[in-house]
Amino acid sequence: MNPLFKSHIYKARREQLSTAFSAGLALFLSNEESVANYSANTYHYRQDSNFLYFFGLSIPNIVGVVDFERKKSLLFGDDFTIDDIIWMGDQPKLATLAAEVAVDEVRPYAELVNYLKNKEIHFTPPYRPHNKIELSRLLLKNINELSASVSLIKKIVSLREIKSVEEIEQMEDAMNIGVKMHATVMRYCKPGVTERELFGIAEGLALGMGNGTSFPIILSQNGQTLHNHNHDLTLEKGRLLVMDAGAENVMNYCSDHTRTLPVSGSFSDRQREIYEFVFQANMAAIENCKPGIFNLENQKIAVTIITEGLQKIGLMKGNLDESVALGAHALFMPHGLGHQIGLDVHDMEDLGENYVGYDETIQRSNIFGWRSLRMAKNLKPGHIITVEPGIYFIPHLIDIWRNEKKFADFINYEKVETYKNFGGIRIEDCVLITEEGHRVLGTPLPKSVTEIETILQS
Amino acid sequence: MNPLFKSHIYKARREQLSTAFSAGLALFLSNEESVANYSANTYHYRQDSNFLYFFGLSIPNIVGVVDFERKKSLLFGDDFTIDDIIWMGDQPKLATLAAEVAVDEVRPYAELVNYLKNKEIHFTPPYRPHNKIELSRLLLKNINELSASVSLIKKIVSLREIKSVEEIEQMEDAMNIGVKMHATVMRYCKPGVTERELFGIAEGLALGMGNGTSFPIILSQNGQTLHNHNHDLTLEKGRLLVMDAGAENVMNYCSDHTRTLPVSGSFSDRQREIYEFVFQANMAAIENCKPGIFNLENQKIAVTIITEGLQKIGLMKGNLDESVALGAHALFMPHGLGHQIGLDVHDMEDLGENYVGYDETIQRSNIFGWRSLRMAKNLKPGHIITVEPGIYFIPHLIDIWRNEKKFADFINYEKVETYKNFGGIRIEDCVLITEEGHRVLGTPLPKSVTEIETILQS
Repeated sequence: MNPLFKSHIYKARREQLSTAFSAGLALFLSNEESVANYSANTYHYRQDSNFLYFFGLSIPNIVGVVDFERKKSLLFGDDFTIDDIIWMGDQPKLATLAAEVAVDEVRPYAELVNYLKNKEIHFTPPYRPHNKIELSRLLLKNINELSASVSLIKKIVSLREIKSVEEIEQMEDAMNIGVKMHATVMRYCKPGVTERELFGIAEGLALGMGNGTSFPIILSQNGQTLHNHNHDLTLEKGRLLVMDAGAENVMNYCSDHTRTLPVSGSFSDRQREIYEFVFQANMAAIENCKPGIFNLENQKIAVTIITEGLQKIGLMKGNLDESVALGAHALFMPHGLGHQIGLDVHDMEDLGENYVGYDETIQRSNIFGWRSLRMAKNLKPGHIITVEPGIYFIPHLIDIWRNEKKFADFINYEKVETYKNFGGIRIEDCVLITEEGHRVLGTPLPKSVTEIETILQS
Repeated sequence: MNPLFKSHIYKARREQLSTAFSAGLALFLSNEESVANYSANTYHYRQDSNFLYFFGLSIPNIVGVVDFERKKSLLFGDDFTIDDIIWMGDQPKLATLAAEVAVDEVRPYAELVNYLKNKEIHFTPPYRPHNKIELSRLLLKNINELSASVSLIKKIVSLREIKSVEEIEQMEDAMNIGVKMHATVMRYCKPGVTERELFGIAEGLALGMGNGTSFPIILSQNGQTLHNHNHDLTLEKGRLLVMDAGAENVMNYCSDHTRTLPVSGSFSDRQREIYEFVFQANMAAIENCKPGIFNLENQKIAVTIITEGLQKIGLMKGNLDESVALGAHALFMPHGLGHQIGLDVHDMEDLGENYVGYDETIQRSNIFGWRSLRMAKNLKPGHIITVEPGIYFIPHLIDIWRNEKKFADFINYEKVETYKNFGGIRIEDCVLITEEGHRVLGTPLPKSVTEIETILQS
């Protein structure tokens, strides 16, 4: 079980949630243990983040209820038996745990079905098969007919997206584990080492300092493959190593950093050129982070710098503004600039990307590249977002676009062809929006060409 | 995806399976990606072991069928789309993969429901919620009405429990990763280091050298808590550290070793005394491993040595044979001597413990302690089993038994009381049964008092 914030924090969060509802109740299922290859062999336990936010307990087999009518919060669950205790050691009573998060009532799990009868029940979208089965049982509905509450989703997003002072402290803690993971890999990155060894070192640090990684580590010389979880290669002179990795601290707050390292210890001229465009895009977008601007503008700043750069070296051409607006740059950066981060690395993604990154003031684009932006909203103090521009040469995508003559006015395919073995570069930091502007979270991690080359050569 | 054995091995396994059936088909669902805190954030992928054994592919979203009537094997699944490939890189076609495991036919996933209609369908017990939902959909049955095939279970156990030469090679590989994990922790074990740091080092090695750990690592100074996955303590002089940990190699074969280390670098007299009993029990049970004896006999050998030892130092008393037969020793060793190990650390536990460890020649005991033995069967060449005796002082269990005056003729509770802060000791190795007798798998890991103290002090 995790350490806890003080009980009044959870109480206040549930009270804030209640202000949006006059009837019914909100139902929060804990995550069960997740099974690997037989029932007793389970993955590292991960509680549901909404449950963590409102009820703070990192244990399975309990259900939290915020009853809007009775103005009470409840936990449904059962204490361990003496048999369990022989194998698991002394365990705190549920009543004790409930007190630590200021819950009003504790009831046996078996009473939950009855408690829910004839009530208006709000729940978040279930994303684990077990919770779909359990919701179906509790609500007497078919698994395919479970319909999450949009009003609950919207209220939760409005609360969770503004990080409190104590949450920001936890985020800094997570960032510093992430920084340690990256800095250690930088120390061991050299030709002949395997990707898997570096992956193991980073994973080990995440588990040794906190609650493991916040998502499956990307650590690959094939950085052009955006979701690459293969670590079978040996590091080779001349190649680039992309490492996109984050940690979860013991309170389940997440970090997310990406650095791209030249295995040789110094960038080739061609690598340095592309690296600088990504670096400038990252720095300029961060610089522009402040309350009152749409994060979509930051995406525009970043892809404009990238397009300008690629035009300068002859990979792109044509009218800059038009090229950016139509999304010609998406051949090189198909993904978005970033996402919110907190108790999830893609914060609240279980609630639906469009509720987290968009609202009534801004709609998701349909254009390839632009449409991948996860966080477009107007920035407010307390938001924490990632800023992660990149440039990739994805042979498969290049072939498709070239065959279609897509954006032939903006892309110099002849020259792009000569970059097909380049790989990819991404640079990512996490940025807190403050009243005054912004703050990059975590102790600084080498980022500029000089900083990267210095640490790799030291 | 994992590397593969040669295709004829999988073909032969499916043919051997088919010899037990004249009608119907066997259905093997792959494991899906397992979700942590939102759909796109998944745990390290783990394929179902039966799927690995018969179809060898470590990928989700496919179903294998061994059609006993048509005498063919099939894979149902779909190739990746161009969209997937942009994000995931080039992916092999399912037809290519099918050829590597000598599967006869590949069909789209959507055709599976029809293929199954009006057939006699054998399947293994589903242990993941997703596969319960999917089986329910495929077979048009309620989730609670899914009934696994006992004939399929029995035939699979008979095949998988005899490890082939190439499987034994993989087991040795897994053992050596496990040995490296333990040996490294031995090097770093000293007062002031945290359990979590050591845990992280071991996890990192398992991921860096193979496919991660074969089960959640137990690494704790509270070794008396048998299923202890807490790592919050700092190592303290005078205490014992129990580490029970194994690796999965890249082919998903598993290791499992336990060592108990005195944090101070040398055992106290009291610790050494108890350690020697466990050590002798481990050595004697291993020595007795050979074809034709029941593993239940090894349990008897081990608990007899433990009882004798505890009698010698006054913790137990009374008639030795009677004490052992009634299970008085189970206060100190409530668990069994061991289990089969292979593609699962508790091999085939998804198929049901009683099918794996018992058969028509030997039945599970009802007696506390004795009933926890997972593998009691007559040993055959090709069996791989763990041998893991232990002695623990579990305050909670001591209190219960003492209050009940349980086995008061055999247990000296006055004296046991003085050991309540002792902790626990377990020593575990993996043993292959050979034609001639047995072989302990993996390079040797320090085990005797002298070996352990030497490595800790070096």
